[in-house]
Amino acid sequence: MADKLTPREKGFSEWYVDLVQKAKLADYSDVKGCMVIRPNGYALWENIQRTLDAKFKQVGVKNAYFPLLIPESYLKKEAEHVEGFNPQLAVVTHAGGQKLEEPYVIRPTSETIINRSFAKWVQSYRDLPLLINQWANVMRWEMRTRLFLRTTEFLWQEGHTCHETEDDAEKMTLQMLEAYREFAEDYMAMPVLTGRKTESERFAGALRTYSIEAMMQDKKALQAGTSHNLGQNFAKAFETKFQGRDGREHFVWQTSWGVSTRLIGGLILTHSDDSGLIVPPKLAATHVVIIPIAGKATDAEKTQVLEKAHALGADLRKAGLGVVVDDDDSKGPGFKYNEHELIGTCVRIEIGPKDLAKNSCVMVRRDLKQKEFVPLDEAVAKAQAMLDQMQKDLFQKAKAFRDANTHEVNSLEELKARADDGFLLAHWNGDAKVEARIKEETGLTTRCRPFNLPQEPGKCVMTGEPSPGRIVFAKAY
Amino acid sequence: MADKLTPREKGFSEWYVDLVQKAKLADYSDVKGCMVIRPNGYALWENIQRTLDAKFKQVGVKNAYFPLLIPESYLKKEAEHVEGFNPQLAVVTHAGGQKLEEPYVIRPTSETIINRSFAKWVQSYRDLPLLINQWANVMRWEMRTRLFLRTTEFLWQEGHTCHETEDDAEKMTLQMLEAYREFAEDYMAMPVLTGRKTESERFAGALRTYSIEAMMQDKKALQAGTSHNLGQNFAKAFETKFQGRDGREHFVWQTSWGVSTRLIGGLILTHSDDSGLIVPPKLAATHVVIIPIAGKATDAEKTQVLEKAHALGADLRKAGLGVVVDDDDSKGPGFKYNEHELIGTCVRIEIGPKDLAKNSCVMVRRDLKQKEFVPLDEAVAKAQAMLDQMQKDLFQKAKAFRDANTHEVNSLEELKARADDGFLLAHWNGDAKVEARIKEETGLTTRCRPFNLPQEPGKCVMTGEPSPGRIVFAKAY
Repeated sequence: MADKLTPREKGFSEWYVDLVQKAKLADYSDVKGCMVIRPNGYALWENIQRTLDAKFKQVGVKNAYFPLLIPESYLKKEAEHVEGFNPQLAVVTHAGGQKLEEPYVIRPTSETIINRSFAKWVQSYRDLPLLINQWANVMRWEMRTRLFLRTTEFLWQEGHTCHETEDDAEKMTLQMLEAYREFAEDYMAMPVLTGRKTESERFAGALRTYSIEAMMQDKKALQAGTSHNLGQNFAKAFETKFQGRDGREHFVWQTSWGVSTRLIGGLILTHSDDSGLIVPPKLAATHVVIIPIAGKATDAEKTQVLEKAHALGADLRKAGLGVVVDDDDSKGPGFKYNEHELIGTCVRIEIGPKDLAKNSCVMVRRDLKQKEFVPLDEAVAKAQAMLDQMQKDLFQKAKAFRDANTHEVNSLEELKARADDGFLLAHWNGDAKVEARIKEETGLTTRCRPFNLPQEPGKCVMTGEPSPGRIVFAKAY
Repeated sequence: MADKLTPREKGFSEWYVDLVQKAKLADYSDVKGCMVIRPNGYALWENIQRTLDAKFKQVGVKNAYFPLLIPESYLKKEAEHVEGFNPQLAVVTHAGGQKLEEPYVIRPTSETIINRSFAKWVQSYRDLPLLINQWANVMRWEMRTRLFLRTTEFLWQEGHTCHETEDDAEKMTLQMLEAYREFAEDYMAMPVLTGRKTESERFAGALRTYSIEAMMQDKKALQAGTSHNLGQNFAKAFETKFQGRDGREHFVWQTSWGVSTRLIGGLILTHSDDSGLIVPPKLAATHVVIIPIAGKATDAEKTQVLEKAHALGADLRKAGLGVVVDDDDSKGPGFKYNEHELIGTCVRIEIGPKDLAKNSCVMVRRDLKQKEFVPLDEAVAKAQAMLDQMQKDLFQKAKAFRDANTHEVNSLEELKARADDGFLLAHWNGDAKVEARIKEETGLTTRCRPFNLPQEPGKCVMTGEPSPGRIVFAKAY
């Protein structure tokens, strides 16, 4: 079949690219490193957006929108920030037919331009906390790109908050990290570690960076979201000050946090198989496809089957599910099964004349691919139960996989030998130079120091020097 | 009071800018012509988005996302298109620390880059119609900008569709125009004329452009949305072809249509008053503010009032309304009244000890500012009824205003004399040069030839030559 994907065993990367393109999730464009997000992919992003947006609003975050372009001078106000982002900037030098006096950069992230507004909006402790989020496109010029996982332009949300105290900012940073964990695990069915990044992996301009880290099916790590305690770095650069309860001026304490269309890549790489996409039901646009089987049926039987299929579709929709009745006569059932496996419809229902005679139908869960015969009048309840169970099973399967591929490692040799084996828990002395040498020798990077990993002192795998506790090393996207 | 707006009579433009800034809808930025959309303004945009997005999906339109940057060469493929947009482009010449081989422009609109994808996606008549929409930021370098109404960067949606026949494309063009009319009138309570634009006001690259045109309180016109029949112009430039039912290759017939954050400016200019913003209830984030009146009440009374206020708030929320209970002790009721009039909360409810004793409350509709005493147990039903009536009244008021300021005009002198009087229906010979001369002499532009204006032949006000029927002239934003 023309639409078959490269099997994962033959080439994991090829399988991924095949899947993204053949399931019509995204497409390459002629613009260096930029992708086109097609309707099937964008529908996933819309569901991610809707869910996260509601979560943000629950904690009092409000949406706003700031300019796409940032005066070059803004970025330079925070020394570490400009150093971190400078190599990745796209620069607008001409506009309206003229050369600009000062070039603008396309936002790689918006801390600087947002602080320019915050400095005007925040006057008093009564204005705090200020909790703002933006859904936007950003641009970071990347050398090596991969659909969804690393693209020059991507869509994301960036939260930006101001607080009275360092403690408040730290709490917010961790609260949003926890919101990301919940979303990743409860909606994406993607288990994640939460923890702190090392100094060298810290966001340029932040005090501390935390992340959620997931394991993909090829055992590589995916940083799926970050939350930063910015301290007062940007506040000092932009004079974002408030009059405190003590009547004196103080710089605000800030956070920022973001997830992006990269999540869609994570979702694909966590669950999908050689037949195509598998989507956790909570994020699926189409939960059920009903495929009427005509075959050698009489015209009267065909009519009956079609009627029943549409009636069942209506019942499923009433129950709040996304339903497609695929009654296209020009395609056979086999073609339709493949098609819906490819695009990741969660549950398939087949109804033919024989099923109808028994007042029954066939139901198949996308991830299990096993047929179940279900009485028609139980089909709605069964579909709901299947979807609930599928959501749970996908998470458990991914978690079991991650846990089975997480290992304690106690020497550099072992680290090298097991470099492709998943998450490696190893001791390291905390020195960035040593971290860089480990990366050079093994291809492994530190992912995070997970909150739930008990920290017991040990010896650095490279230097033998004291280590405060194990940290996660992995190859990463 | 520091927050008082310039009254409309003293300066309509100043009033508008005052309102936008003091109601915290938007703010200027240091980026030329770009604004910051603040949470109060963005909440309006979110409600506009949600409503329109549902409308689009109902007709089968799917969302997607295309690159922000467009290779300069793409624009040049459609001669009229590049000529129209060239003066307004922002150009990226450097990225990733290097000069680009070919510059990119920031999309002023996406017909070109979208056609590059459509040409790949469309193969057969079975792929048609292809109905795509994008929610995105676009950039057009403008010399004179005005918050929401004309900004260098703005947010919008752009629909792009492909069809088998010219007739299908024309139907789609008009269907989306009608969707815009419904939205403007039913949700924004903003009456609009629908009609065709003249050749000189046609979208660069289109066959025909239609628009919805509204009248603002200063009697100026606002083009609030456009829908274009693109014919095969872009299809030919990008080779967007399909195999037809006849087995032969054909170029697709296309449409595009868009509305933008300009709508927020239209909403403000249609309804608001010297006290601040007035929002049609269907687009309001906050429908009701409950203000507990403490005054000289005893502590026990205060507690009772607060309890009742929050209980009523909960009941109103259950009824699906957006509610704020403004129980901030540091501000007096008068301050709160002004504040909520400024930001446009639709209905204000006051509850004090005296009201409570009578088991009653005071309700005030934002646009009428008249107190009504309402039994507490009828407050929810009354609030709903008030909001329904307010939605209708705002539309009727705006429509009556527009109709009262629409005049037939029969000579150039009259056109000049009445240039500030609203929509002027005048005869014109259809010649773009004459249209330009009329603009030069009167400051008036053609808005559209409205569908519902019976076309009777007459004589051009400038040349005396035959005219097919009257067209709307107005000063415009």
